[in-house]
Amino acid sequence: MEIFVYRNGASAVEENFSAADLPELLADKKNLVWVDLLGETDEQLAEIKSVLLNVFKFHPLTVEDTLETRNQPKVEAFPDYLYFIVHGIKPEETSSANFLTKELDGYLGDNYVVTFHDERFKSIKAVKHQIRTSTFACRRGAAYLLHQILDQIVDLYMPVLDDFDSSITELEDRVFALKKGDDAILEEIMDLRRSVTRLKRISARQLDVLYRISHGEFPQIPENLLPFYRDVHDHLQRISDLSENYRDLVAGLFDIHFSVVANKTNDIIKFLTIFSAIWLPLSFMAGVYGMNFENMPELKTRNGYFFVLGSMVLVAISLLVYFWRKGWILQGSDKKSDE
Amino acid sequence: MEIFVYRNGASAVEENFSAADLPELLADKKNLVWVDLLGETDEQLAEIKSVLLNVFKFHPLTVEDTLETRNQPKVEAFPDYLYFIVHGIKPEETSSANFLTKELDGYLGDNYVVTFHDERFKSIKAVKHQIRTSTFACRRGAAYLLHQILDQIVDLYMPVLDDFDSSITELEDRVFALKKGDDAILEEIMDLRRSVTRLKRISARQLDVLYRISHGEFPQIPENLLPFYRDVHDHLQRISDLSENYRDLVAGLFDIHFSVVANKTNDIIKFLTIFSAIWLPLSFMAGVYGMNFENMPELKTRNGYFFVLGSMVLVAISLLVYFWRKGWILQGSDKKSDE
Amino acid sequence: MEIFVYRNGASAVEENFSAADLPELLADKKNLVWVDLLGETDEQLAEIKSVLLNVFKFHPLTVEDTLETRNQPKVEAFPDYLYFIVHGIKPEETSSANFLTKELDGYLGDNYVVTFHDERFKSIKAVKHQIRTSTFACRRGAAYLLHQILDQIVDLYMPVLDDFDSSITELEDRVFALKKGDDAILEEIMDLRRSVTRLKRISARQLDVLYRISHGEFPQIPENLLPFYRDVHDHLQRISDLSENYRDLVAGLFDIHFSVVANKTNDIIKFLTIFSAIWLPLSFMAGVYGMNFENMPELKTRNGYFFVLGSMVLVAISLLVYFWRKGWILQGSDKKSDE
Amino acid sequence: MEIFVYRNGASAVEENFSAADLPELLADKKNLVWVDLLGETDEQLAEIKSVLLNVFKFHPLTVEDTLETRNQPKVEAFPDYLYFIVHGIKPEETSSANFLTKELDGYLGDNYVVTFHDERFKSIKAVKHQIRTSTFACRRGAAYLLHQILDQIVDLYMPVLDDFDSSITELEDRVFALKKGDDAILEEIMDLRRSVTRLKRISARQLDVLYRISHGEFPQIPENLLPFYRDVHDHLQRISDLSENYRDLVAGLFDIHFSVVANKTNDIIKFLTIFSAIWLPLSFMAGVYGMNFENMPELKTRNGYFFVLGSMVLVAISLLVYFWRKGWILQGSDKKSDE
Amino acid sequence: MEIFVYRNGASAVEENFSAADLPELLADKKNLVWVDLLGETDEQLAEIKSVLLNVFKFHPLTVEDTLETRNQPKVEAFPDYLYFIVHGIKPEETSSANFLTKELDGYLGDNYVVTFHDERFKSIKAVKHQIRTSTFACRRGAAYLLHQILDQIVDLYMPVLDDFDSSITELEDRVFALKKGDDAILEEIMDLRRSVTRLKRISARQLDVLYRISHGEFPQIPENLLPFYRDVHDHLQRISDLSENYRDLVAGLFDIHFSVVANKTNDIIKFLTIFSAIWLPLSFMAGVYGMNFENMPELKTRNGYFFVLGSMVLVAISLLVYFWRKGWILQGSDKKSDE
Repeated sequence: MEIFVYRNGASAVEENFSAADLPELLADKKNLVWVDLLGETDEQLAEIKSVLLNVFKFHPLTVEDTLETRNQPKVEAFPDYLYFIVHGIKPEETSSANFLTKELDGYLGDNYVVTFHDERFKSIKAVKHQIRTSTFACRRGAAYLLHQILDQIVDLYMPVLDDFDSSITELEDRVFALKKGDDAILEEIMDLRRSVTRLKRISARQLDVLYRISHGEFPQIPENLLPFYRDVHDHLQRISDLSENYRDLVAGLFDIHFSVVANKTNDIIKFLTIFSAIWLPLSFMAGVYGMNFENMPELKTRNGYFFVLGSMVLVAISLLVYFWRKGWILQGSDKKSDE
Repeated sequence: MEIFVYRNGASAVEENFSAADLPELLADKKNLVWVDLLGETDEQLAEIKSVLLNVFKFHPLTVEDTLETRNQPKVEAFPDYLYFIVHGIKPEETSSANFLTKELDGYLGDNYVVTFHDERFKSIKAVKHQIRTSTFACRRGAAYLLHQILDQIVDLYMPVLDDFDSSITELEDRVFALKKGDDAILEEIMDLRRSVTRLKRISARQLDVLYRISHGEFPQIPENLLPFYRDVHDHLQRISDLSENYRDLVAGLFDIHFSVVANKTNDIIKFLTIFSAIWLPLSFMAGVYGMNFENMPELKTRNGYFFVLGSMVLVAISLLVYFWRKGWILQGSDKKSDE
Repeated sequence: MEIFVYRNGASAVEENFSAADLPELLADKKNLVWVDLLGETDEQLAEIKSVLLNVFKFHPLTVEDTLETRNQPKVEAFPDYLYFIVHGIKPEETSSANFLTKELDGYLGDNYVVTFHDERFKSIKAVKHQIRTSTFACRRGAAYLLHQILDQIVDLYMPVLDDFDSSITELEDRVFALKKGDDAILEEIMDLRRSVTRLKRISARQLDVLYRISHGEFPQIPENLLPFYRDVHDHLQRISDLSENYRDLVAGLFDIHFSVVANKTNDIIKFLTIFSAIWLPLSFMAGVYGMNFENMPELKTRNGYFFVLGSMVLVAISLLVYFWRKGWILQGSDKKSDE
Repeated sequence: MEIFVYRNGASAVEENFSAADLPELLADKKNLVWVDLLGETDEQLAEIKSVLLNVFKFHPLTVEDTLETRNQPKVEAFPDYLYFIVHGIKPEETSSANFLTKELDGYLGDNYVVTFHDERFKSIKAVKHQIRTSTFACRRGAAYLLHQILDQIVDLYMPVLDDFDSSITELEDRVFALKKGDDAILEEIMDLRRSVTRLKRISARQLDVLYRISHGEFPQIPENLLPFYRDVHDHLQRISDLSENYRDLVAGLFDIHFSVVANKTNDIIKFLTIFSAIWLPLSFMAGVYGMNFENMPELKTRNGYFFVLGSMVLVAISLLVYFWRKGWILQGSDKKSDE
Repeated sequence: MEIFVYRNGASAVEENFSAADLPELLADKKNLVWVDLLGETDEQLAEIKSVLLNVFKFHPLTVEDTLETRNQPKVEAFPDYLYFIVHGIKPEETSSANFLTKELDGYLGDNYVVTFHDERFKSIKAVKHQIRTSTFACRRGAAYLLHQILDQIVDLYMPVLDDFDSSITELEDRVFALKKGDDAILEEIMDLRRSVTRLKRISARQLDVLYRISHGEFPQIPENLLPFYRDVHDHLQRISDLSENYRDLVAGLFDIHFSVVANKTNDIIKFLTIFSAIWLPLSFMAGVYGMNFENMPELKTRNGYFFVLGSMVLVAISLLVYFWRKGWILQGSDKKSDE
């Protein structure tokens, strides 16, 4: 539990308070108090629960929701405060095409912001750094401080999207370069599809939360700060649009993969057909003169053998020309697409 | 018919009443009465019908709806009471990828809750156990008791979703491990698709019911209990989102299955082509020297036979190298995807 | 033209009136008059037109709409009456997966119901039977009588849906049992798809009509009868949901059919490949020893022939083992899916 | 420029006025004036522009829109008049599955209707014929005259839809009768798809225009004429629904085509497989006895040759029986689907 | 920074002002001031930032948005001015099926328009040329001047759409002419798909901006100018509809490509099958008479050889006739689709 207090007009935020100091700090309406709660262990969770219920007197249901994870983004208004859940995302370390969501629960009151998370947030850390170096954000009050936090969270969506972008491009290249129908590529497309769908969904709900916050629905957000929230909303809108875009592209990857495989199969069958079409008649010709009839005049002629060999070459060339005119061989693109 | 009565301020709920006691119990507005009706046999149904019509004087049409099953979730307001239909689900015993729906009809009045079902409900049983051990829920009135029942019903959706999750993962693994195009896997995908679609649909209607209940549309739900209903709504929202997610994934299974089969077919045809391409020319060469021309100089040479055998090996090797350079053989992934 | 009159308080409906009696009957506001018009012949149509225009004085455009078929379901309010078009459906006799729509036009006034149809309606017949045996429905007034008619019409949708259900199940079985790519099954899937799409569309428009009627938009429907109309609406909602469901399933049939065919093709090509892969090398071996070189030492050895035969068996067995280990033969499912 | 004037109470419309007469004609509010403008040449367009701007004093932007084509259907209200654009369609002469759109721009004032088009309209011609033979439509005022025009335009959509209907049926038959994968059919499906999509889009916008006109949004349309406009709206609704229907069916054609081709390919590969499976072993047998080993006891037996021939027949029959039992040959449907 | 000033009643716009003149120019409410800002270098950006913040005193957030690119189209109202972002597009030089977006930010005040862009805009240049030659647009005030700019931007969408049109047609032709499954065509379809999707998305957001501007939501736009904005909106609507249309067509290209490849594969396999079906039995026949049995009576007959050759021709012809009757060869379309 980290507590930051900005006393009106002070030149720096104060830190190092404990839960016991909170009632007094909150009582002075001119203070801005930010309580950042990190609930990793059971003891921490127990203490946090008691603070939320007894010091802040938040609704028991919201406290319950706060402490458990796996909630959807939402925002709910209570007479004295606003309860919100937002999701941050971070790239998964093992796979570039995947990401993890992290839940941030919080409360916004007249002169305080409470944030709760059960793992470290890069964006929370950034805001802490910021208020330690400048009191600018604090001077503008609790709603502005919250805006800073949300802004940081939304900004960190971008690197994940950039990862998607390069994953899609890379997969597309690999689909076209497809060597032997390998299933690994399909698994990756499937994974990416799943990630992008998830991102779309998460940002959609988040967007809803920010839309409601930024359009003056809640009295806790002063009107002069609405443009700032609208700005976060617009950023998220862009992210949502991009992830919709990526969803389309990933869906398209399946189509391409399928078409590329169909093309390859077509090429292979063409190869097989040409091959068979040339050797089968030649073998037949050889077979004919391998028959053991007593009366086969050609066999006795002097140059019969050479004549037959010549005919075979002729047949082979005719067939090759036929296929070439049909557009099945050579003519440039065969090489390109097969080798 | 089980009747639970909580008299205001009492330390425990009373049970073992009969239908005949109901008018008196209901008349005292300070009592909270829960009538749980199980209609399995025709006699039970007849008695239930008479109680609903004569004791509670519910609208004849709602009573008719109550007694027949196969209704959609809905909620309808009448001057004195709220009529609702919700669906519980339970996994089917024989198949992990399937589930059964169970209909729960009910009425919520000022001081009573009536529930009707034609088979046992695990969630109803849980709430009964709860009010027998603690009067906490009863002290908060009829609407809160109903909230407890709905909460339990919605919580029991989760195990079914978890089943889906593992079914999808398992099917995906099997699709990729596909040995010989087996149709069994297709049947399972189809079954799952059907189940997930059903779940999506059911939860959509249910969501609608809970949205209306939890947004203050009905005076029967006191305003201070709305957050509790919103909580159930949010849980259901999450379930609905997840089932939407699963629907996407199951739809994707078809795409993958198809692509995997196309890949396999491609591999097989490649195999066939390579095989034919190697043996056909060799057979032709053998055929040539099997011809019976009298004048075939090679036949008389001393090492003609061995020379021809050597040429055959050479041709075979050249072709293998050709295919290897084309990327059709070896190079690692062939093994992986076929064996 | 059949006219049913229920005089207030009477114990039975009266029949056998003619068009000439209508003005008098309608003038007494305490009568309930139901005029059921069957317009099969041109004379009937002419008489009906005159009655609608001169006796009831309905708007000329609605009369025109009434007499021509091929209208969409709709409901339109006029100061004194409500004009509605609904569609009944009946299974087509020749094909279980198809249905015909029948249009019912009608007017609802304060004390009368007018229904027009150009072919016999099973549901109209049922309501006639009902009011002949009991005056219950008539006592509740014109709007209730109309409710009875609509209820019967909607109830008769159900058998068509049941037909769909069994058609889909049967088709699914046949798709999986697919013997030789037969197109007949595709034609049936296409037919069913068309029927289900039509049903979806019809019920959607109908739903719209019933929604408007059942939500108090029209003063012609007394408020105490709204629950009855809502009930019809709910039934139709269920039908609409089911037909949506069937649409999904039928769309899925194409996917399965396609996948099953792909599986079969894969199996066949596998068979061809195995066959070729075994016989081609064997034939080559026979070809080698069919060459006519003078100096082929093996030919002179005593057991050369038997040795070669043995090698051939060995090669064949090795190849079979190879394919078996690749998972291309035996291992159970091959039999199952092909025979 | 054709001007029709109906003076109140007159028994016929008057014609043969020129642009110069317009101010006077329009000044008398009891006249109904219809100005039909055909702008084919540049001179006509110049004159029309001047009339619209100087005589009628329409907003310059609407005049600009009027004179250029390629606008969307729309309706816009100005204080004194209504400006509308609707699209008529006519079948293209060269192809039954295609149609052309024609734009009709117009203005509706208190006592006048102005219509502009840059090619001849069959429906305009029909209305002219109608008002020349009967003053009925004119007596009902400008809004009713406009209704007549719109009604005619919408009615002429129907033949195009009927063309679609027969095109789809014909294409479906041809898809099933598919002989040699011919691409011509694909081009036609694609063309039809494009046409139907276009029709859907056009009727959707048009529907919007008529919905707004027919629901009392504009004071230029007297309330007693609204049912007439609603009637046109309903017709268009039906057309829009039908074209939606056709869109589904055409989209389905691709699925069927694809499935039919897959079926055919499957049949062909089956044929190839059976053929190869029979001849390959027989050829091998012949090859064995064509070997030149000195010690091949069978070659010397008296009936060896006949015995081998018999074995060959036996092998062939066994294989045929095997394939027949596998369901790959005969059994009726093979014939049907291939010949 | 280019500043254009139109003093009320003047006969020409004045230019060549600097940032320092702005406060004075803006103070006179009868002047119309257009400040066009081109921010290519860092110095320019710094100066622009200072002008926007200090001279115009725009909200700091909007100034931040203005200076950074990659924003979505939007419009936001502030008490004294309107802030908007719109996107222009221009075809990419290297590829006809691609386009670049250019962001234009701007502010509309009572007597001024501010536009900002970080690269040259063809449409801005056109408007500058226009106001230099005629003061018509300036006389109508700031909102009209803005309308001119937007109109030019939207007009320049059209050439990009025309490029799409020809790209689609060309791709369609190439898909049908498909020679050897070449992947290049798939890459182009994919590129086009991406471009069209982007255009759809951009025009959708833009449409939203113009809808809000043109429907009287903002007091900065005088009511008499709304028709002009509605006109721009209608143009954009048409573009949006067209791009939706193109999206459908491009999606269709995949279907066709796939079907065409399937057709080709079918043709090739048919060819292979016919070829094999003819040569395999002939080779077998030759093989039979190549056997070395001592007792093969046919071998000794005089015309055995010629009789066998004749039989071979007969078998070949019979098979050809069989395939011809099956519809697999000749009959016209084979030639057409393969060569």
